[in-house]
Amino acid sequence: MATAGKVIRCRAAVAWAPGKSLSVEEVEVAPPKAGEVRIKIVATGICHSDDYVLKGSLPNVEFPVILGHEGAGIVESIGEGVTSVKPGDKVIPLCIPQCGECSFCRNPESNFCQKYHFSEPQNLLPDKTSRFSCKGKQIHHFLWVSTFAEYTVVPEYAVAKIDAAAPLDKVCLFSCGFSTGYGAAINTAKVKPGSTCAVFGLGGVGLSVVMGCKAAGASRIIAVDINKDKFAKAQQLGATDCINPRDFKKPIQEVLTEMTGQGVDFSFEVIGHADTMIAALASCNLSTGVCVMVGVTDSKISIDPMLLLTGRTWKGTLLGGWKPREGIPKLVSSYLEKKFESDLLITHTLPFAKVNEGFELLRAGKSIRTVLLF
Amino acid sequence: MATAGKVIRCRAAVAWAPGKSLSVEEVEVAPPKAGEVRIKIVATGICHSDDYVLKGSLPNVEFPVILGHEGAGIVESIGEGVTSVKPGDKVIPLCIPQCGECSFCRNPESNFCQKYHFSEPQNLLPDKTSRFSCKGKQIHHFLWVSTFAEYTVVPEYAVAKIDAAAPLDKVCLFSCGFSTGYGAAINTAKVKPGSTCAVFGLGGVGLSVVMGCKAAGASRIIAVDINKDKFAKAQQLGATDCINPRDFKKPIQEVLTEMTGQGVDFSFEVIGHADTMIAALASCNLSTGVCVMVGVTDSKISIDPMLLLTGRTWKGTLLGGWKPREGIPKLVSSYLEKKFESDLLITHTLPFAKVNEGFELLRAGKSIRTVLLF
Repeated sequence: MATAGKVIRCRAAVAWAPGKSLSVEEVEVAPPKAGEVRIKIVATGICHSDDYVLKGSLPNVEFPVILGHEGAGIVESIGEGVTSVKPGDKVIPLCIPQCGECSFCRNPESNFCQKYHFSEPQNLLPDKTSRFSCKGKQIHHFLWVSTFAEYTVVPEYAVAKIDAAAPLDKVCLFSCGFSTGYGAAINTAKVKPGSTCAVFGLGGVGLSVVMGCKAAGASRIIAVDINKDKFAKAQQLGATDCINPRDFKKPIQEVLTEMTGQGVDFSFEVIGHADTMIAALASCNLSTGVCVMVGVTDSKISIDPMLLLTGRTWKGTLLGGWKPREGIPKLVSSYLEKKFESDLLITHTLPFAKVNEGFELLRAGKSIRTVLLF
Repeated sequence: MATAGKVIRCRAAVAWAPGKSLSVEEVEVAPPKAGEVRIKIVATGICHSDDYVLKGSLPNVEFPVILGHEGAGIVESIGEGVTSVKPGDKVIPLCIPQCGECSFCRNPESNFCQKYHFSEPQNLLPDKTSRFSCKGKQIHHFLWVSTFAEYTVVPEYAVAKIDAAAPLDKVCLFSCGFSTGYGAAINTAKVKPGSTCAVFGLGGVGLSVVMGCKAAGASRIIAVDINKDKFAKAQQLGATDCINPRDFKKPIQEVLTEMTGQGVDFSFEVIGHADTMIAALASCNLSTGVCVMVGVTDSKISIDPMLLLTGRTWKGTLLGGWKPREGIPKLVSSYLEKKFESDLLITHTLPFAKVNEGFELLRAGKSIRTVLLF
């Protein structure tokens, strides 16, 4: 079944060192070894996490590295023993794998595979070698996916086969941002019809939470951001109210509690600040409120345990709770059935060579999602 | 329907000031006003919260006060308009009311009535007067129930009618400690058959959590306490393993993670210390683990948000999630059907006059529950 492969020379954006711009280079991509898949990446989004890594903030990442983790492509060749995909299949490489064998993969309620980079570094493929080199130097993988390369090599269990009809320049978002936000509402919070929701932070993931709340039938979706420019899109995607904490003298949790009588049923923090995490928790009603933490922060959070003791629930979400190899293809099918409008998140499309321009748009807050096309 | 009532002279334990022993006095108990019920208390447990209040640590409590909130008795007389109970009925006065009208009472998933003392003080009855006096002084109510009195007056919506066959000297525990712990496992955590659980703290409430985990079908219940003397009872009630954190050099969360492969499915903190709250959270598995906070503390807790971001759920419980007027009578029925052995929590029975001896047993860690009999 294995395709006799050769080294492919192609373009990739190499991050040579933290804090520097990416450098578009010609790289060599070795053929897939046993259990691996080489994918021709067609489109890739730029996620805040990529920028976060570029600043040197994520552990278990080693430079030089090829970043990018929100891609979609077509299988070019497969290594020995690969059976779930074949050359020509449309696929999404997964930054959270699903090995199918660990105790979490066997638990229907968990989507945290023990091969995820929290458990073991994914800066090299599972055999501890890299398939990338450039100018004679080994280049590291990132979360095993490294979608800022025209060709990448990924373990089979980190590849989701998707519908052949899927437009890759649109569904590339499903490997991270959209799935995380949408699933946080649908799977993690389990938003109920007729409920009230508050979403803190209206970036691409926050807007995906708004879409998830709407799809779940929430009757009121209050979007919260300090940037009013984001309100129009939030309303277009389902927000019923948009509020700016800077317009109020009192803490935003008090504003939300007054707006809703006793606090919202579901709140979501999609920023990654300790202050807004506490505000989101306090914004949901003290008895049955559920707060989902979607944003990531390094700093510790200090909370009054009474916030929880009266009955609130506080939880986190990883990729929106989807078991990736099963869930992402289902999301693609829902997309094709037009169940949500994730295309509206894509504000910019650039040729791959302009990857640094994409990062500049992100840092300036001018884009929601920029998709790079090879 | 109203019973023409007279003032009753009877015994009560008056807390004249914080930090002092209780004083058994003759008090006057006025007849119930409209919507109120006068109850002859037959038996009352002594809970840690009573001692906590006696130290002056609970807000919204005013001295002099009659404490006690774990009682059971018989309706002596009813005020105008009371329809749900009549003289002679066996009842449990409820420290968490169920008004039936507020938005939480109308929500089937909430058990937090907006008339609870977190919302408004319960140091006087709803009409802002007291039914208690002693030596010409008004004595305050406590959580509306004040079960350290031979007769007490309680709003109808804070009274649960129970089965006439119930032994009051046993089911008095159901108005607080037992229901809280048992319900934390059954209702709040929703412990699943075959799951693994860890219970931090083996006082009366912690042991009730152990019983709840067992009733829910947990296959492994790990009891954690620094006092080995508590292990025999825990095992009798369902604990499969008992561990003392002082027997290990590494943090207890690491011990529990190693014991179970990836952490327990459900953990419960029933102590009320910030350190054990964090340990309990970290002890449950990072993807689907549920940690329920049962203990109360004043101090803030500082956590690493990554503990939640990978998928853990952290929640609190109030009276074990039971809607009190509906849930407590059901628990009494389950008791009569011998579904659990809550009697084993009662280590001491004393005549009411020895109330201070009961507190001494509690403070010395010699009792699980002491029941006082009138």
